[in-house]
Amino acid sequence: MLAADVGGTDTKSALVDASGRVLGLRRTRTPRDASDPAGAIVAHLARLAEGYRAQFPDVRPVAAGLSVPGLVDETSGTAVFSSNLGWRDAPMRALAESTLGLPTAFGHDVRAAGDAEHRLGAARGFDDAIVVVIGTGIAGAIIVDGRPHASGGYAGEIGHSLSDPAGERCACGAVGCLETIASASAVARRYASRSGIGVPGAREVLAAASSGDAIAAAVWDEAVDALAEQFARLVATLAPEAIVIGGGLAEAGSALFDPLGQRLDALLSFHRRPVLVRAALGDDAGLLGTALAARDLVGQGA
Amino acid sequence: MLAADVGGTDTKSALVDASGRVLGLRRTRTPRDASDPAGAIVAHLARLAEGYRAQFPDVRPVAAGLSVPGLVDETSGTAVFSSNLGWRDAPMRALAESTLGLPTAFGHDVRAAGDAEHRLGAARGFDDAIVVVIGTGIAGAIIVDGRPHASGGYAGEIGHSLSDPAGERCACGAVGCLETIASASAVARRYASRSGIGVPGAREVLAAASSGDAIAAAVWDEAVDALAEQFARLVATLAPEAIVIGGGLAEAGSALFDPLGQRLDALLSFHRRPVLVRAALGDDAGLLGTALAARDLVGQGA
Repeated sequence: MLAADVGGTDTKSALVDASGRVLGLRRTRTPRDASDPAGAIVAHLARLAEGYRAQFPDVRPVAAGLSVPGLVDETSGTAVFSSNLGWRDAPMRALAESTLGLPTAFGHDVRAAGDAEHRLGAARGFDDAIVVVIGTGIAGAIIVDGRPHASGGYAGEIGHSLSDPAGERCACGAVGCLETIASASAVARRYASRSGIGVPGAREVLAAASSGDAIAAAVWDEAVDALAEQFARLVATLAPEAIVIGGGLAEAGSALFDPLGQRLDALLSFHRRPVLVRAALGDDAGLLGTALAARDLVGQGA
Repeated sequence: MLAADVGGTDTKSALVDASGRVLGLRRTRTPRDASDPAGAIVAHLARLAEGYRAQFPDVRPVAAGLSVPGLVDETSGTAVFSSNLGWRDAPMRALAESTLGLPTAFGHDVRAAGDAEHRLGAARGFDDAIVVVIGTGIAGAIIVDGRPHASGGYAGEIGHSLSDPAGERCACGAVGCLETIASASAVARRYASRSGIGVPGAREVLAAASSGDAIAAAVWDEAVDALAEQFARLVATLAPEAIVIGGGLAEAGSALFDPLGQRLDALLSFHRRPVLVRAALGDDAGLLGTALAARDLVGQGA
C-alpha cells in the first residue's frame, strides 16, 4: 500500500509491503495551491508514488490510502471542508483513484489515528472509546461499538465543543471552544497574555508551574479543568470505556493524567469512569491508520 | 407480545397481537418491595399476563418485552441499578423468562422510547439522532448509525451531563447536572425558590414569563440556555442529524423550540445544525418500543 497522511504543514507518507513492513517513511511539505487545493494534494501524492516506484522497484502497491484534516465524508469520498488547506466539497477519493490508478481509501487524519489506536494501540480491546489528540488544536475520534463514528464527517470535534459560554472567540467562529483553553497552543498563549512572558509551548508553562509560578499553575489548572469537564460530559452521554489522549500535551505524562483523573472522579457520580490512557502509537498513528484502511480495501497485498 | 414499560410510579402494559393491534393498554401501580425489588416487578408482570389471558383468551403471546428505568445492560439482561426502584445487578431478563415461560426482550425505558421514535416516530429516517425526554428528570437515547447506543447501559445520561460546575448538587450526587436547571421540575422549583411563589409545574412558569414576570422569564431562559449548550456539545462530538424532544417540557411547543433553535444557531459555527423536532409518539413511546423489541425476538407473531 501507498499511504499518505496530509497535515496542515507536512505530509507523512510510506509504502507498506505485503508483510506489513513500512518502507520509505518520509515527511514532505504539504503543497498549497489556492486555485486548486485538492488537485495539488493529489498531484503531490502522485509524485510521491513515482518516487517510491524508483526507490522500491520490487514493491508494486495495489491500493492507496489518503487521509486529510478538516471535515471529511468517508462515505462519499469527499473532502468537505478545510479552512487551513482551502478546499470545499472536493471529490478527493475519485481524484486520487483516477490519478494513481489505484483503489484508494480516503479518510480523516484523526479518525485514521483513532482507528490505529483502536486496532493496534492504547484503545485496543475497548468497544467504546474516544481518542483525543491535543496539540495546536484538539481533535477527536469516537469509536462506538467497535466502529469509528463519523456522522458525515461532523463527529468528534471535541476541540470545538463548548467549554465556556463567556469565553474567548475561537478561530472557528464559535465562542468558548475547548480548544481556546486546553490545546497546547492555548496554554502557551494564555500564559503569555497573562504573564507578559512569551513561551514557545505548553511544556514551558508546565515547567514554570512546577517551579512555583502562580500564573502558570492557574493556566494549567484551567486547561485540566476544561478537559475534565468535557470528558465528564462525554462520559454521561457516550459512556466510553477508555479515553486515549495523544498529541503534544500528552507528553506531560502524570502532570496531565493525575490531576485530570482526580478532577474527572470529582465530577462523576453513578457514571462509569473510563480509564484515561496515553496514546501508544505516537505521531505516526494517522499514517498507520491510513495504511490499515488501504489494506482493508484489498486484503493483505502490498 | 406482552409488553410492559415500568416507570417509577406506574407501569404501562398492553398485549400486541400479530397484526400489530394494541389490546388492553393499561396503567397499574409499579409495585415496590424493598427486600426483593426486581422479583416484585416480575411477579407484577406475571399477574398482568394472567389478567390478559382471561381478558383476551384468543391471544397467546409468544414473547414478552420488559423495560425499566435506571441503568440497564441489555446485552447481559441485567437491571444494573435503579436508585428509585431499588435494585442492583438484578438478572431481570432471566427472572422474567423463567417466570413467564416466554422469551423476553429486556431493555431500558428511554432507549425503548428512542427506538420507537427512530423506527416509527420523529427520528425516523435519521441514522444519527438523539431523543431527549424532559420531564421530572432528563433522559436520553442515542442512535448511532441506525442503532441504539447503550455502552453497557451507561450512555444517554444527558440529564446528568455537567451544565454548571458552580451549580447546585443533583440528586445523583454530582454537581450542576443539566437536570438541575432544565428539567420541568427544576424550572418549577427554581421559580418557586426565587419568587417565593409555589407553582405546580413548568407550564405555570412559562405562563408567568409570557405575562411579564421577570423571574419566570429568567428561569425559563436559563433552562433554554442550558439545553442549547448541551445540545451544542452533542452536535460537536456526536453530530446527530436530529434531536427529538419529548416529555412534559416539549408541550411548550414553539415557546421552547423557537428560542432553543436560535440559541443553538448562535453557539455553532462550522458544525452541522441538527433539526430540532418534537417527539411524535407521546407517552406510549416506551411501551411501543418495548413491544417492538419483543417482536424483534420472535418475528411477527403475537
